[in-house]
Amino acid sequence: MDAGRLAALAAIAEAAADVAGAVIRPLFRADIAAEIKGDASPVTIADRAAEQAMRALLAERTPQAGVMGEEFGLDRPGAGLRWVLDPIDGTRAFITGRPLFGTLIALLEEGEPVLGVIDQPITGERWVGVAGERTRFRGPAGRVGTRRCASLAAAELSCTSPEMLGDAAPRFARLAAAARRVTWGGDCYGFGLLALGQIDVIAERDLKLWDWAALGPVIEGAGGLLRDWSGRRLTAESAGDALAVGDPALLEAAAACLAG
Amino acid sequence: MDAGRLAALAAIAEAAADVAGAVIRPLFRADIAAEIKGDASPVTIADRAAEQAMRALLAERTPQAGVMGEEFGLDRPGAGLRWVLDPIDGTRAFITGRPLFGTLIALLEEGEPVLGVIDQPITGERWVGVAGERTRFRGPAGRVGTRRCASLAAAELSCTSPEMLGDAAPRFARLAAAARRVTWGGDCYGFGLLALGQIDVIAERDLKLWDWAALGPVIEGAGGLLRDWSGRRLTAESAGDALAVGDPALLEAAAACLAG
Repeated sequence: MDAGRLAALAAIAEAAADVAGAVIRPLFRADIAAEIKGDASPVTIADRAAEQAMRALLAERTPQAGVMGEEFGLDRPGAGLRWVLDPIDGTRAFITGRPLFGTLIALLEEGEPVLGVIDQPITGERWVGVAGERTRFRGPAGRVGTRRCASLAAAELSCTSPEMLGDAAPRFARLAAAARRVTWGGDCYGFGLLALGQIDVIAERDLKLWDWAALGPVIEGAGGLLRDWSGRRLTAESAGDALAVGDPALLEAAAACLAG
Repeated sequence: MDAGRLAALAAIAEAAADVAGAVIRPLFRADIAAEIKGDASPVTIADRAAEQAMRALLAERTPQAGVMGEEFGLDRPGAGLRWVLDPIDGTRAFITGRPLFGTLIALLEEGEPVLGVIDQPITGERWVGVAGERTRFRGPAGRVGTRRCASLAAAELSCTSPEMLGDAAPRFARLAAAARRVTWGGDCYGFGLLALGQIDVIAERDLKLWDWAALGPVIEGAGGLLRDWSGRRLTAESAGDALAVGDPALLEAAAACLAG
């Protein structure tokens, strides 16, 4: 796809992030339990309403593209372009009032992510990654660009939670032992921080397509790599383990720690 | 101390938080390694400079009070009033670019915290707790007030990191098994979220006086309790284990899980 068309689609993705944020913000830290009929939680309401708002905008602006979302499945499965949406990545962060969840918007061309947006609607931070271009970042502090890291021993490692590791915990523990330090929490926001050169390595498990599709263009446009735990590119058939490194030279050593 | 004097001291504490934030903000996510002589990290520079700025302000506005800070020790040990400062609580959060660290300012009267400020200078969030008064909160979302929680089974549990638990991990695991869900990360910010009714229980270890002194007035002015793992009030002689509950009715059950 040519750069002009990609730039136009990136602007549409940003408009989708804007409408999602407008839906999500009033529900963040809201005590609306008393107003709700049935079992829907604030995060469920925010998730569904934000996805519907994005779908409405995308259907109008890109009627030829398919849309896959975590909440409402896949429209137009035969389309060569497909939007992939995760309205609230980081459910636990949202539920507990931490402004580290994110809205994820990816565009796939024949199954390959060519555009990704990570949006944090409370802090106003936004990362936009477009294939072949430098990632853009808007926020109160920080600058795009992963950092050099001479070895795992100097690396800041991050992961959302010990619980997500399950039976892979011993493999993660080998990586943690080799790293300088580990910090917990973050979901997609952690990958954004890696793109800002604040974190060197992230290893996560159980990521679905909508969790990781937007991350690749952001990370790779900032100088890093997003792979699986074996160091291979992620595809729709990947098992859901993800390994991101800011300095590509770290990939081999990190994957060796995580090998089964 | 009468309410008018406490209110005046709270305004001074807020002024100290303002100067600390002004020092810290330009250093957050800054890549200043190349400019630094010696081994000082950005967080160390921010910590020291913010503490010095607060000490200068407090020495001018409350020359009769003592000051204890994490970086520069104790001034005027005999004073009946003592400021207790932690310029950056949440070093790992700061280092990895997460805006969940906080500046903590407490005032002790004869050893007892009577005033506490939690300030997050990037998101602009601030909690101010004053003995005998309702906690105040300023931020983009949320309202002061812990929430009712019928049982541990319904409780959102939080802790900064598995690493801080050390040999108490099995005791924490009992509490986690009884709770609805556990979320990691947060430092002082998590206690602020408990005061907003977003989290129900927090159990932490290895807290120093400057880590917890500001939290008590904030939590108790929002309807919760800050205790040790046995359910006793924290004192300067406490071992550093802290248990906060939003609903006081949860204290006994949570402490029973954490019992050695």
